[in-house]
Amino acid sequence: MERIPVIEIFGPTIQGEGMVIGQKTMFVRTAGCDYRCRWCDSSFTWDGSAKHEVEWLTPEQIWQQLKQLGDDRFGHVTISGGNPALLKGLSALVTHLKEKGVRIGLETQGSVWHDSFDDIDDLTISPKPPSSNMETNFATLDMIMDRLATHRGRVSLKVVVFNDQDFSYATYVHQRYPSVPFYVQVGNDHIHEADDVTLRLNLLQKLEWLVEQVIQSKHMNDVCVLPQLHTLLWGNRRGV
Amino acid sequence: MERIPVIEIFGPTIQGEGMVIGQKTMFVRTAGCDYRCRWCDSSFTWDGSAKHEVEWLTPEQIWQQLKQLGDDRFGHVTISGGNPALLKGLSALVTHLKEKGVRIGLETQGSVWHDSFDDIDDLTISPKPPSSNMETNFATLDMIMDRLATHRGRVSLKVVVFNDQDFSYATYVHQRYPSVPFYVQVGNDHIHEADDVTLRLNLLQKLEWLVEQVIQSKHMNDVCVLPQLHTLLWGNRRGV
Repeated sequence: MERIPVIEIFGPTIQGEGMVIGQKTMFVRTAGCDYRCRWCDSSFTWDGSAKHEVEWLTPEQIWQQLKQLGDDRFGHVTISGGNPALLKGLSALVTHLKEKGVRIGLETQGSVWHDSFDDIDDLTISPKPPSSNMETNFATLDMIMDRLATHRGRVSLKVVVFNDQDFSYATYVHQRYPSVPFYVQVGNDHIHEADDVTLRLNLLQKLEWLVEQVIQSKHMNDVCVLPQLHTLLWGNRRGV
Repeated sequence: MERIPVIEIFGPTIQGEGMVIGQKTMFVRTAGCDYRCRWCDSSFTWDGSAKHEVEWLTPEQIWQQLKQLGDDRFGHVTISGGNPALLKGLSALVTHLKEKGVRIGLETQGSVWHDSFDDIDDLTISPKPPSSNMETNFATLDMIMDRLATHRGRVSLKVVVFNDQDFSYATYVHQRYPSVPFYVQVGNDHIHEADDVTLRLNLLQKLEWLVEQVIQSKHMNDVCVLPQLHTLLWGNRRGV
């Protein structure tokens, strides 16, 4: 039985980001990442700080936990990380969830292909901008976007933007894959801010800035600009 | 030349609602409505208060105003109201905009069919809940949703929710048309609140309530819960 390292399972809640913003869903967060983004809001998935929380679970064990939490109150499951595309056991989980009749969302940075991408209903590829300190391998990303051109579900690109340089990067990515639905998202650089009001107003101010960048750019006409809805709602808390 | 009554044209900005949330777009707001929703945030389109602002414009005149405002910085136009479906001249405008190569979004309450619905790329049908004091004619809505079953663009239903009764109504609408992507949206009952911080925090609190209703309901598993993004950003101001 193939097991995958799971760091948290929670829900029902709503999706906070990108093409699936607002979607009622359950979350399965896998451990392990090939990236180390400077501003990662889930660094506990890779920095060792939540090592003791990682459980190696079979698809059926994951399903049991989902049912226990969500009972008959969910129809959509989001697999997030970390980078779930690193996990060989992902295919078995995706197959199992499909058999149970739920729709599946998955988010990954587009650094690695995984055959199970083909079976994801809502697939978000989120390459990381310069502020992350990571470097995009565009040869790999090209290959992935090429293979996704015939995808049967919904596919989108999403770039988090913290500053002007990130916005240039987002523009470049959108122009490189112009036919793929494109989302720019406000970065949260107050990941340790405990005061929700301060955080909310700060994020909305940043969103206003990002909207203005998009409005002014003739290269960003067919894009969506979004906040992280869960951060506006629940601040930096985990498990919601 | 067919003219339509236009009450404001503005943009580029972003869409604040539903399936097109965050989408960069221009707005053409038409005058006149068959409804009188109690909490309407655009009552100036029908209550006579902005009568002097109404201009009867040809499709080319509308296009010229869009170009003047948006130049080469837009690729999407939203037609909103009032209820644009009431206007015979709508077809000519939609045809003209299509010829110019822009994508078109349109929102209407689903009280009247219009042949130009077939040519809309992003069509939102937004029946009004009990708190509006309006009554839905479900025979008409059935007919409209039936005709839209073979629509080539994106179609969704959106219901604004202010209270428990509205939420029951939303649940009913979703169950009546289960295959149509469904959005519930937080109502803004502070349409005269001038203080943006108060308004923002109030809306986010309401959003949290609505998310909780959706989480608890087994009939609302495949839905999206969203705020009005433009109200979070810009409060009750017009023309943004």
